[in-house]
Amino acid sequence: MQPKLVRLSQYFLPTLREAPAEAQIVSHQLMLRAGMIRQASAGIYSWLPLGFRMLKKIEQVVREEQDRIGAAELLMPTIQSADLWRQSGRYDDYGKEMLRIKDRHERDLLYGPTNEELITEIFRAGVKSYRDVPKLLYHIQWKFRDEIRPRFGVMRGREFYMKDAYSFDINRKAALDSYNKFFIAYLRTFARMGLRSIPMRAETGLIGGNNSHEFIILADTGESQVFCHRSYLERDGMAVDDSTLEARAAAVRDWTRDYAATEDEHDIEAFSAIPEDDQVATRGIEIGHIFYFGTKYSVPLEAQIADESGANVPVHMGSYGVGVSRLLGAIIEARHDEKGIVWPAAIAPFQLAVINVKVADTACRAATERIMQQANNAGFEVLYDDRDQRAGVKFAEMELLGIPWRVVVSPKALATESFEVTKRRSGVIQNLGLEAIVPFLCKQFGR
Amino acid sequence: MQPKLVRLSQYFLPTLREAPAEAQIVSHQLMLRAGMIRQASAGIYSWLPLGFRMLKKIEQVVREEQDRIGAAELLMPTIQSADLWRQSGRYDDYGKEMLRIKDRHERDLLYGPTNEELITEIFRAGVKSYRDVPKLLYHIQWKFRDEIRPRFGVMRGREFYMKDAYSFDINRKAALDSYNKFFIAYLRTFARMGLRSIPMRAETGLIGGNNSHEFIILADTGESQVFCHRSYLERDGMAVDDSTLEARAAAVRDWTRDYAATEDEHDIEAFSAIPEDDQVATRGIEIGHIFYFGTKYSVPLEAQIADESGANVPVHMGSYGVGVSRLLGAIIEARHDEKGIVWPAAIAPFQLAVINVKVADTACRAATERIMQQANNAGFEVLYDDRDQRAGVKFAEMELLGIPWRVVVSPKALATESFEVTKRRSGVIQNLGLEAIVPFLCKQFGR
Repeated sequence: MQPKLVRLSQYFLPTLREAPAEAQIVSHQLMLRAGMIRQASAGIYSWLPLGFRMLKKIEQVVREEQDRIGAAELLMPTIQSADLWRQSGRYDDYGKEMLRIKDRHERDLLYGPTNEELITEIFRAGVKSYRDVPKLLYHIQWKFRDEIRPRFGVMRGREFYMKDAYSFDINRKAALDSYNKFFIAYLRTFARMGLRSIPMRAETGLIGGNNSHEFIILADTGESQVFCHRSYLERDGMAVDDSTLEARAAAVRDWTRDYAATEDEHDIEAFSAIPEDDQVATRGIEIGHIFYFGTKYSVPLEAQIADESGANVPVHMGSYGVGVSRLLGAIIEARHDEKGIVWPAAIAPFQLAVINVKVADTACRAATERIMQQANNAGFEVLYDDRDQRAGVKFAEMELLGIPWRVVVSPKALATESFEVTKRRSGVIQNLGLEAIVPFLCKQFGR
Repeated sequence: MQPKLVRLSQYFLPTLREAPAEAQIVSHQLMLRAGMIRQASAGIYSWLPLGFRMLKKIEQVVREEQDRIGAAELLMPTIQSADLWRQSGRYDDYGKEMLRIKDRHERDLLYGPTNEELITEIFRAGVKSYRDVPKLLYHIQWKFRDEIRPRFGVMRGREFYMKDAYSFDINRKAALDSYNKFFIAYLRTFARMGLRSIPMRAETGLIGGNNSHEFIILADTGESQVFCHRSYLERDGMAVDDSTLEARAAAVRDWTRDYAATEDEHDIEAFSAIPEDDQVATRGIEIGHIFYFGTKYSVPLEAQIADESGANVPVHMGSYGVGVSRLLGAIIEARHDEKGIVWPAAIAPFQLAVINVKVADTACRAATERIMQQANNAGFEVLYDDRDQRAGVKFAEMELLGIPWRVVVSPKALATESFEVTKRRSGVIQNLGLEAIVPFLCKQFGR
């Protein structure tokens, strides 16, 4: 839980007038300019207070949707022993992307790029019977992939924040239901962030298995070419019935019926069969990836449970990833204009920015405090620019930061009893009396 | 924010009847037995759901008290470049405790054991003027120290979770006020966790500087010998006035007036001067450590700000650490009995455990749901044992977990309209009607 009222004088928000030349894409430029991140070394970032706050917001939405499907949160360490990875046979597969480490005793360690091995070991030690599954476990932890050429800011960094979940089931049928639960949870997660995500059939790569979907948002600046049916542009990820096994299966069938594939899995013939007006060929950003891989890890790592007959069988597994830090970049790619970021109201760092243009003035300060108090009481988070700065600088910075609503307190507003309340997205201004501001905002947010 | 109602059937709580032999101290034994942690490799732990939940609870108390003194939260990465550490001269000082890494391009990296260098660089890039200080910044992040002999579970692990804060001021006088703010914040933080912490003059070690206090809790199993005046056993860390600079200075003077020192700084003569009845010589656990080190880092790293005359001066700094993961062990060392953990009510993973001894019974299930709903609505967190298990097993496990209050639902309780409500700490049982349970708990928690 981050503070609900932040005063810029105490905050650390080093905005930049110009983005550094190395920032090639708009989200990277805006995150640097808005003082959200700062590069520590190649592909490794410090998250300054505003960026950190957004990271926590996104994390919390991801968490709530995992909890909603009955997944339990735990936390695995960043540093793992190489032995487990040798057991699964993946120690060599990862090549140079895996950050390999030797400790003071010359033991081989690594910075986890993912956690199939470790979670399988944890499960194995704790669960023995079919009665204890399905078991859905997840964690949200820093990962490291030693990209040869880190770029695009947090979109393709080396140290990155990821939610990875794992499902454990008695057989393939039950495991596919777990897969469907996460599939639907992902539709909801991204929809809550104002993103239209499209599940696309995908390669399974280093994770393995034979069933996999990537969740893609469309963006001109996306890293890969994607192809889909226009129907996906009109679907609502929140309107999915997931109350029963059958409902989940039907929902996933419905969401995978029309054509949608990344470049790697693209079937030109199938795509050409779509009416031309419905063909969408554009670029996309991957924000989630889910896998069903059966017993790929449970066999070598000997994770078995007793079935109803008492026989030990290897557990059926899937894994489910969301790039939490990457999502920040993805949201900004999807939501910005020439002035800066335009956060969706549901996932903004603050809902309200208050600019006091004359902080030395007692009446202005009192009015500001009154508005902030009311807003906080109504559950809004408020960023207050209480710095002794030119009004023009304050306005431009707030637009860069992209907070959905802005109120300006000035001697003139006080004298005329008319305060400017501006919507960031449209730029439309309301003139309201002091006591009408927070009730107006409540209405906008449906509170 | 963790879920407010957890059903054991969906949770992952692999309790153990016996603690593994390698666990030497009671907190390590109990954390393993209660299914809170599991060793991943030497000195590196996975935090299972119950342990993770407590870690987040402790983190949130630490966070709130940092926010309260106006510190802004950010997040620095775990992996740092070695170059910065060469600039400060500490790259070699740390010796083998520092986990050194080479990336695929053979660049020297390290897993941060602390962050003075990186935060100084972040500050330098963002703050230019005396008008922008004091600036208090903190983060809560995983650290790594490659202990030669990791032991005592999370008390002396290799990968550990720590809050480290940094203060930046224009001069020594202002910097000492920042020091005092953190000093008082620590008294409050630990008091909120039910711990009596004693600030003791301490060595500055690898951090450096000339003013330093460790915050110690007394425990027979503590790692070091400590000596203090008995007055510290009766002080209230919450009852400290920190409203002004003068009040803070007076409070710190008051809290450092009587004798209190760790072994390293022990002054036998001064200690002997205390009346014998007031001499306390025992063992202690370090849970926090604060440092004022002036310009030790700002000079080599060239972190300067303009003073009122326009001249650039090196900024005065301090740093302030709390071992978040270690605190879990410390609390358990301080709060346990022969049956298991006894969480302080203010910082328990759940306030209420509900045991349904006959989960197949419709009336029992309905009564259970009603109690849980009421408890949730009143703001309590509830752990529900809905497993089909023997009652004896359920009782013993709940006592091991140490949840402050327990309610038992059974056919007999329903028939007699009398439910057993048991306080974990005292074992005292109340017999209450179904509708009286939650109002009774509200009273106990002063709600």
